[in-house]
Amino acid sequence: MKCPVVPGRHPEILLAHGGGGKLTQQLIEEIFIPAFSNPLLEKRHDGAVFDVNGTTLAFTTDSYVVHPLFFPGGDIGSLSVYGTVNDLAMCGARPLYLSAGFIIEEGLAVETLKQVAESMRLAAEKASVQLVTGDTKVVDRGKGDGIFINTAGVGVVERGLDIAPAGVRTGDKIILSGDLGRHGVAIMAVREGLSFGGVIESDSAPLWEPVEGLLKRKIGVHCLRDLTRGGLASALNEIAGARGVEIRIHEEAIPLHENVRGACEILGLDPLYVANEGRFIAFVSSGDVREALSCLGLFESGAGATVIGEVCGGTPGLVTMKNTIGTHRVIDRLDGEQLPRIC
Amino acid sequence: MKCPVVPGRHPEILLAHGGGGKLTQQLIEEIFIPAFSNPLLEKRHDGAVFDVNGTTLAFTTDSYVVHPLFFPGGDIGSLSVYGTVNDLAMCGARPLYLSAGFIIEEGLAVETLKQVAESMRLAAEKASVQLVTGDTKVVDRGKGDGIFINTAGVGVVERGLDIAPAGVRTGDKIILSGDLGRHGVAIMAVREGLSFGGVIESDSAPLWEPVEGLLKRKIGVHCLRDLTRGGLASALNEIAGARGVEIRIHEEAIPLHENVRGACEILGLDPLYVANEGRFIAFVSSGDVREALSCLGLFESGAGATVIGEVCGGTPGLVTMKNTIGTHRVIDRLDGEQLPRIC
Repeated sequence: MKCPVVPGRHPEILLAHGGGGKLTQQLIEEIFIPAFSNPLLEKRHDGAVFDVNGTTLAFTTDSYVVHPLFFPGGDIGSLSVYGTVNDLAMCGARPLYLSAGFIIEEGLAVETLKQVAESMRLAAEKASVQLVTGDTKVVDRGKGDGIFINTAGVGVVERGLDIAPAGVRTGDKIILSGDLGRHGVAIMAVREGLSFGGVIESDSAPLWEPVEGLLKRKIGVHCLRDLTRGGLASALNEIAGARGVEIRIHEEAIPLHENVRGACEILGLDPLYVANEGRFIAFVSSGDVREALSCLGLFESGAGATVIGEVCGGTPGLVTMKNTIGTHRVIDRLDGEQLPRIC
Repeated sequence: MKCPVVPGRHPEILLAHGGGGKLTQQLIEEIFIPAFSNPLLEKRHDGAVFDVNGTTLAFTTDSYVVHPLFFPGGDIGSLSVYGTVNDLAMCGARPLYLSAGFIIEEGLAVETLKQVAESMRLAAEKASVQLVTGDTKVVDRGKGDGIFINTAGVGVVERGLDIAPAGVRTGDKIILSGDLGRHGVAIMAVREGLSFGGVIESDSAPLWEPVEGLLKRKIGVHCLRDLTRGGLASALNEIAGARGVEIRIHEEAIPLHENVRGACEILGLDPLYVANEGRFIAFVSSGDVREALSCLGLFESGAGATVIGEVCGGTPGLVTMKNTIGTHRVIDRLDGEQLPRIC
């Protein structure tokens, strides 16, 4: 299922244009940024942060096209709530309100829609957000795929807080909130009908609580990023590129469940690029690391938090990993698409 | 192309569930409201209006699945900007920021995406909003239809302003901002390769300017609604139902371009149910009607404004129309889908 690498320019949209790697970046750079150019978009953040009458708000959106709709540890409904809640949290914003736009394929069982709506309800409750406005469109049979969901979210940022790639500093430590790769591997396993020494569940979860914990303790958090499409490698590359710094990580520090490691080997996946839906990285002042780790440890979704690397003043935009035998390799952006329709 | 009427309950989603008529209402009542129940959603407004730190905001979303992507007078790009801007305007909110979520089918020409993005850019400029955050997903060939766009919007409402169905009062006059049916007929004409005494262009346009004009003049505007899916008839029914009032309109007062009237006759469409993308109704205190009309006349998108009816204390939820020979007929909600994928 690993798509071939497809560098260069293409006259048609490929699946890889949606993969979160180089081609997605190309679309953003060559089509969306020139068309919609404005200072907020150019921050390349997970959401836009702006002031309205002196109140700082964050605003973000994601569409969810995951296939299949239901998978171990989650479904498109909960994913569509947590994904957008997490993008707000990554801006340092308390998630408040969500919108939901459904694009349904003619012929979907009404019962399936009910299950998805119920899952969204539970997820919204768990994440303490309200779904306050919505829209439903139906497309002809064969012009959609069951159900696609878009959610957008509005959150509020405490006055003076500025969590963004621009805040990253040389010397910052990079904390990863837990083990990698569960979401992508869970989806692949159910899609391919494989099992890897037991069911691997998606890590899909809301992340505002651990983030709020860090902020409440006034820990020096400079940037946050959740590790969705394109995984850890893409997140690190985006931030290294946006801030013009070098990032170094350490292979032996990266937590990976044994079953996920085995599955990645069998499927030919690199866990650094596999999507997660309940993991994030935090760029933290080195002096605050110990407190940050003990704080994250208080939350279910931060229990596995650990330092995986640091920010250096080396080559702007470069990400390298020191492996277990002491050599370094460059961690590049993904050229093609590793796993299509993962979220 | 007119779909059969499909009352009752169905185990599968039909195109008509997205048509803005009775089946859409049924989905909302039976699935979404119970799942997401909260006071904001229950207002049945075009968007949610809430306070954050003392600032009143409006928040709304729509997905756009119009087919074809380009049509006389517009395209999916400009539609996706104006549609959401207009939903904010109907809450009495100045549109500020939009998000954009693209779901693209593998194989779409990159050139088409560029055209759509450029159209969004121009539309955002015209409507004085900024596109500040976005997302792109790609689905496999045959699992989408070129491009679907979701936009969500955030706007700001002046302190103390409350434009909503709950504000409608007996005795209010109903002003329609211009002639009906252009958008739906334009789409049908290009889909079917028909021409009706010249090209009919969609009325697609941003509506904040005329609304702002009314609000600035402190005209007693109680409720606003744009006439998209389901047309005038559905908007009137929604408001009559939400507020528990009777609405009476007058057939001879409803402006209709001759070519649109002819096209509707040929296609078997009732113009009261045809979608518009640049028309709205305003519920206005009867004493303010003259000033409201002269104000709307100052704006391109309000130039054809006229009074079409009034609010009575008769049968709650009933909408009737007095026709040209003096008899009354009930204007019901649409059972099925008149025109699929119109927006």
